[in-house]
Amino acid sequence: MTQLATPLLQQTYELRQAIRSRAHTGPTSGLATGAMQGNIVILPAEWANEFLLYCQKNPIACPLIGVSEVGDFHLPDLGKDIDMRHDLPEYYVYRDGVKVESRADIADLWRDDLVVFVLGCSFSFENALSQAGLTPRNISEDVNVSMYESNIATVPAGRFFGNTVVTMRPYTPKEAIRAIQITTRFPKAHGAPLHFGTPQDIGIHDLDKPDFGDAVSVKDGEVPIFWACGVTPQVAVRNAKPPFCITHAPGKMLVTDMLDMDLAVL
Amino acid sequence: MTQLATPLLQQTYELRQAIRSRAHTGPTSGLATGAMQGNIVILPAEWANEFLLYCQKNPIACPLIGVSEVGDFHLPDLGKDIDMRHDLPEYYVYRDGVKVESRADIADLWRDDLVVFVLGCSFSFENALSQAGLTPRNISEDVNVSMYESNIATVPAGRFFGNTVVTMRPYTPKEAIRAIQITTRFPKAHGAPLHFGTPQDIGIHDLDKPDFGDAVSVKDGEVPIFWACGVTPQVAVRNAKPPFCITHAPGKMLVTDMLDMDLAVL
Repeated sequence: MTQLATPLLQQTYELRQAIRSRAHTGPTSGLATGAMQGNIVILPAEWANEFLLYCQKNPIACPLIGVSEVGDFHLPDLGKDIDMRHDLPEYYVYRDGVKVESRADIADLWRDDLVVFVLGCSFSFENALSQAGLTPRNISEDVNVSMYESNIATVPAGRFFGNTVVTMRPYTPKEAIRAIQITTRFPKAHGAPLHFGTPQDIGIHDLDKPDFGDAVSVKDGEVPIFWACGVTPQVAVRNAKPPFCITHAPGKMLVTDMLDMDLAVL
Repeated sequence: MTQLATPLLQQTYELRQAIRSRAHTGPTSGLATGAMQGNIVILPAEWANEFLLYCQKNPIACPLIGVSEVGDFHLPDLGKDIDMRHDLPEYYVYRDGVKVESRADIADLWRDDLVVFVLGCSFSFENALSQAGLTPRNISEDVNVSMYESNIATVPAGRFFGNTVVTMRPYTPKEAIRAIQITTRFPKAHGAPLHFGTPQDIGIHDLDKPDFGDAVSVKDGEVPIFWACGVTPQVAVRNAKPPFCITHAPGKMLVTDMLDMDLAVL
């Protein structure tokens, strides 16, 4: 993967510093434009292989872009100074599959058997959408992207199973066709949408009540478009019930020093 | 462009012979799979430059893939033995923009000032759709594709102007996303759809009453998907009112000896 050029590297560095110092605690969508962001799942090593297999079987929802060494909270392949104990705006802590805590730092929870998984994030194609004049509504309304637990089952692996979490961005049909083309270029950032139109068809009953993130307005003539989301593993963690797991809070991602465009195949 | 391999060349030759002898008079969709088909517009030379410009300004609806020499009814670049006086299952004859006749042969109407324009046709991507398990409904129901005059204006050029004619193929949203990806690969065969969903949004009020071709069934959970169509120039001819013009009858195309896949960019 390609490291950012200096001015953007400065931005990602400063953003991570702001997150580390808790000066920034909100969503990361639309920030450090051009830099790749990642979903995070941290599991004990004895659960790692099973989760790896789950990602392999569900490459659209869970596109792996990085895995740490056991016990290492650095991710040198994704950014030189990344410290996974501090560098997310918000962490979720799961015990036995139950979310027990949300916190700004996990330094005192770190263990030397933990493995960090980094999954591609749809924020990586939001920049490409914006450049095409298709700025996602969550960015123009300055809120967290809308996320919903759909009824689209993932492929189980070991103890991991569950439905796919999806993000939603509204577009007119003409815009949606262009958005499908653009996001198709980013298979490692969830790629093309899974569904458009009637939310009920994929088990979503109220767009105004996302399961994660914020609702956005859907205007007349617009259709909701649904992409797979890297929060999907959190549903699988709820089901697999590993004794210990840490994830990012939805929409509050790891900001890397790598180029968004590295996830584009064309 | 690439010429077909011998077995398929044999098929296109035989199909054109069957058309020439009037043994085949129907639509050409789904026939000689793998061979490129074309929309036809034949105009007097003095109207040719204006029409050329119209095609240039409307590359999605009017993707030019061949132009004859003035007065030449052969198209050596598209097939060695093509004779435009006989090789369409059905011709429309327009005088002063009015369709005055439909006929199986135009030998006795041929003039040495005529220019033949060949435009890419959505049938070229139907094979790719079928191979992806997305057989178009017009093929599975063995009817002519459904065509509608939309309210999507083309860009005028000289005296040529008018709305875009679109073909419609129904798919579920999931299938439609795949179909958008596949047809995006064929920019010279109308490429990605222009619209999906509510037909009224593009001025179509009754899917059961296509302006050209046949209606197809739209099943529960399916959405109509609309692609630009090479019948669009016939609307422009109606408006421009050239004293003389010959076109193919919608759905009854020129079968060439060239490869469909030559229109694919990826």
